[in-house]
Amino acid sequence: MIKLALIQHKCQLDIAENINLISKQIEVAAQAGANLILLQELHNSVYFCQQEVTDNFDLAETIPGSSTEHYSQLAKQYNLVIVTSLFEKRAKGLYHNTAVVLDTDGSIAGKYRKMHIPDDPGFYEKYYFTPGDLGFEPITTSIGKLGVLICWDQWYPEAARIMALKGADILLYPTAIGWDLNDDDAEQQRQLNAWITIQRSHAVSNGLYMASCNRTGFEVEAADSSTGINFWGNSFIAGPQGEVISQASNDKAEIIYADIDFNQTEKVRRVWPYLRDRRIDNYKDILKRYID
Amino acid sequence: MIKLALIQHKCQLDIAENINLISKQIEVAAQAGANLILLQELHNSVYFCQQEVTDNFDLAETIPGSSTEHYSQLAKQYNLVIVTSLFEKRAKGLYHNTAVVLDTDGSIAGKYRKMHIPDDPGFYEKYYFTPGDLGFEPITTSIGKLGVLICWDQWYPEAARIMALKGADILLYPTAIGWDLNDDDAEQQRQLNAWITIQRSHAVSNGLYMASCNRTGFEVEAADSSTGINFWGNSFIAGPQGEVISQASNDKAEIIYADIDFNQTEKVRRVWPYLRDRRIDNYKDILKRYID
Repeated sequence: MIKLALIQHKCQLDIAENINLISKQIEVAAQAGANLILLQELHNSVYFCQQEVTDNFDLAETIPGSSTEHYSQLAKQYNLVIVTSLFEKRAKGLYHNTAVVLDTDGSIAGKYRKMHIPDDPGFYEKYYFTPGDLGFEPITTSIGKLGVLICWDQWYPEAARIMALKGADILLYPTAIGWDLNDDDAEQQRQLNAWITIQRSHAVSNGLYMASCNRTGFEVEAADSSTGINFWGNSFIAGPQGEVISQASNDKAEIIYADIDFNQTEKVRRVWPYLRDRRIDNYKDILKRYID
Repeated sequence: MIKLALIQHKCQLDIAENINLISKQIEVAAQAGANLILLQELHNSVYFCQQEVTDNFDLAETIPGSSTEHYSQLAKQYNLVIVTSLFEKRAKGLYHNTAVVLDTDGSIAGKYRKMHIPDDPGFYEKYYFTPGDLGFEPITTSIGKLGVLICWDQWYPEAARIMALKGADILLYPTAIGWDLNDDDAEQQRQLNAWITIQRSHAVSNGLYMASCNRTGFEVEAADSSTGINFWGNSFIAGPQGEVISQASNDKAEIIYADIDFNQTEKVRRVWPYLRDRRIDNYKDILKRYID
């Protein structure tokens, strides 16, 4: 049995303050018995992609680097696995949105570079992040194989499926998603429900646990303080039938937990044997952009 | 604008009685303004796959045949499109689970042969149905391109995705799914929720309307009247953000309706452009059974 903890929080402009908060929350989770910590996307800073600003590349860091060093120490100190989400500086002028998994011995178990990069008003990620080139590879740790994906990836069944076919024990999504102030309540609710539904569906179709850790709080857009993103929280953990086990509020910093038994996947897949019946002889059109 | 109607009902042993009921309900739906009718899976008979019985192959019929002729006449008479679900006799000893779409002029617009065939206690479909060999092809009708899939297909994101990539305007699932009497309430609820979640997710990930028409009522297993399947109804229609527009009860025969505007797909996909960002360069592992 694994105890999984998701740390949902609001980010401040001061990076040291964020790292300090997260470190304290990791300690709280460790004392509650957590073995596996999932942090939200780009947890060390505000969501800088609201605008295209060249100086924001200063926020990027190497991997390994100061953040991996810091969280490695915590992982070792508390004997747990931490899934971090960092702005990676890979080379001069070459950046990725990268999750780094730190194992209980403080080593880097592996990294995942976000494969699907969004771009829409307020989320200018294609400006900052080169699409990942490491593919969809679960990261082997001392507590299991982690199918780490990031935010926009969560809308793609293909990503979850490949992680499952490669033996992932669980799907984990660091996330930064929120509401546009211009959308009415009904539209905001549809968006939140769609987000929960699509991620639960990956648990269902693959018979896997999944967890998604999102930030909360309103973050103003630097250039126009009348607008910004209201990050919708709602971090949650679902079981291998897509059942929600634990869910955070939309507007509070909190830690949510779930006890996870990876053997449930075997039990669920015996009753719902989707992997047995896949028509792999007829899926090749998935490799096309569109069929016209 | 299209008015879609789903006809959910209980099936009797007498086939003529079922066809008579369905025909009357089609008339009711037509009078309510329906342009498109979705029937449940294998609607002409009880769900005979509860047991493996050689004589049940007598239920199969050719396509075209008496059922397509009957429903063709209704389609033409009421000027609507009907999605039927039939037990197809293709050749001596060769059978499929096949949906046939009848257009407003009474012609056969096309057929889809169920690609993913389940097999578990009470659902011995691998005994009866040869897996489909027509692939995932939307059926072009006078009111739009219909992405018709059948029951077990609904658990596979691959099937929905290929239909979307081939230009389907809507995903339609004739279904026969129910509860095992031996499962407790919590498990029954998890299964129903998983079924709703996975299908709503196909609407979300592809920005398409979807509808699923399931049978209702308890059907006893012929050889052992102490057991059987409690078909869970809950036929429903969802919009292109996965939002449920209309949903039937679990235990009543009823017709549910929704007004459908295929242009919503364009609007939703502009805001949620998943098709733009698919990593088709990295999906080839989906064509494998498992990666080990």
